[in-house]
Amino acid sequence: MPYEFKARRMVEFSDTDMAGIMHYANFFRFMETAEHGFYRSLGFSVVDMSLHPHLGWPRVHASCDYRRPLRFEDVVEIHLLVLEKRQRSLTYQFRFNKLTEEKPEEVARGRLSVVCVTRAPDGAMKAVPIPAEIAKRIELALPELLNT
Amino acid sequence: MPYEFKARRMVEFSDTDMAGIMHYANFFRFMETAEHGFYRSLGFSVVDMSLHPHLGWPRVHASCDYRRPLRFEDVVEIHLLVLEKRQRSLTYQFRFNKLTEEKPEEVARGRLSVVCVTRAPDGAMKAVPIPAEIAKRIELALPELLNT
Amino acid sequence: MPYEFKARRMVEFSDTDMAGIMHYANFFRFMETAEHGFYRSLGFSVVDMSLHPHLGWPRVHASCDYRRPLRFEDVVEIHLLVLEKRQRSLTYQFRFNKLTEEKPEEVARGRLSVVCVTRAPDGAMKAVPIPAEIAKRIELALPELLNT
Amino acid sequence: MPYEFKARRMVEFSDTDMAGIMHYANFFRFMETAEHGFYRSLGFSVVDMSLHPHLGWPRVHASCDYRRPLRFEDVVEIHLLVLEKRQRSLTYQFRFNKLTEEKPEEVARGRLSVVCVTRAPDGAMKAVPIPAEIAKRIELALPELLNT
Repeated sequence: MPYEFKARRMVEFSDTDMAGIMHYANFFRFMETAEHGFYRSLGFSVVDMSLHPHLGWPRVHASCDYRRPLRFEDVVEIHLLVLEKRQRSLTYQFRFNKLTEEKPEEVARGRLSVVCVTRAPDGAMKAVPIPAEIAKRIELALPELLNT
Repeated sequence: MPYEFKARRMVEFSDTDMAGIMHYANFFRFMETAEHGFYRSLGFSVVDMSLHPHLGWPRVHASCDYRRPLRFEDVVEIHLLVLEKRQRSLTYQFRFNKLTEEKPEEVARGRLSVVCVTRAPDGAMKAVPIPAEIAKRIELALPELLNT
Repeated sequence: MPYEFKARRMVEFSDTDMAGIMHYANFFRFMETAEHGFYRSLGFSVVDMSLHPHLGWPRVHASCDYRRPLRFEDVVEIHLLVLEKRQRSLTYQFRFNKLTEEKPEEVARGRLSVVCVTRAPDGAMKAVPIPAEIAKRIELALPELLNT
Repeated sequence: MPYEFKARRMVEFSDTDMAGIMHYANFFRFMETAEHGFYRSLGFSVVDMSLHPHLGWPRVHASCDYRRPLRFEDVVEIHLLVLEKRQRSLTYQFRFNKLTEEKPEEVARGRLSVVCVTRAPDGAMKAVPIPAEIAKRIELALPELLNT
């Protein structure tokens, strides 16, 4: 049974554009909201400096397929699934389900691949293995990922 | 020789995030800047109401592969190529070239598929063929796309 | 006893800039979040088309005084107070209280003046009296504003 | 004759909201564009680390008065004036002039007060006098500010 993390967001006025719908770039901000909520659900923050100074998760790939628009005040549940866990990277899938009075409707599906890096004081980034205790917590949450 | 449209942008402070680099979602805003500049280069605006009332170009797919970060005050040239022109849709490729004192460096590559729609007064969207004079101008600019 | 509406937000990664703090323009997005939540708390949405087609609330003034920065994952409670209700306009005050383990800390204070308008199909806006049932609900919530 | 810096911006699709106009918070992003262009015009960047490590300009006050909306593809010239230069702070005024076929039209006027700070490695900020060579360049550009 795969571990699944859910974040919920209401579309705000500043998320919309003159077409009257959520601007397409903002789906990527919402994916990140779910990603960071997932990290917190595992017990650590993406910027927990005391635990892992200078650790970062820059993106190497991001994509989104749009089926239906989201509008102002729509409430959307973003389901995060870990598709792949490698030594230095993670790949997530995000399903955007608009909550309605009837059953939720999938309006978009996204994907994000991130690399674990450390940052030097000058801002230079270097890929490193995902720290053991973070990797372990992801594996505990997602046992089926252990051998990928 | 394919037609290629180029837009230029400087990364602004508000485009960055606390990692000190351009936030990954903003690459999608920059793609749109190039797309709309491309429309203007063909002689029409994406919102030219007198020409095509209620015409819109919602996205069905967007993706980006990130190679290197962009930082504040970096100047990037976004090269737009029309990869595919169908009756009701267009697919673009975007190459992000950071301008340096030496030769430009490709830092990211994106893709965008848009559908031509009309909007009803209630906001409902319906896919329609790309209006003839718009299709014609794209074909004039991009003769090799005529038979795709 | 004045009516006060409270909205709560967590600072997201995309709200920050390279200075490591919430970008100063985003405080104005947060004010709007509180404003629209206030409208919903009165029983109507800022875009409830069935009730008031083409009604809008463009801003004539916005300001913010910043005392302390907000950082990623800070939780802030935005207190909205209606400072003034005129026939065609409303003025709000917003207090940004960062929630901490101890007592909340005010980090910023904002102000927003909005005008009630109707929009013509061509986008032109015209100031109009606040519709009676909306004005009434605000007065019921805020009896001390009746005579301003 | 006061020194005046001008920046030019076209309103992009992602700057608009569902009301069909530039979102009011984005005027503050445009002010910052002018502010940072002003710093560059004086010969230094707001993040020139070699010159002034850890120097920052957090905002203590920001405001905007809106007269007319800006729409997609409007071109606006943002005039920056230095209203006040103190030992540790600067106050700017910004006039937003929409460029039209006839004479420019002022659509909004903003104000920004910034404090000069240094940042400790832990992110803590401390107000410091504006470095002498920066203060000198502003005074050279703005002789009438010398004695304020």
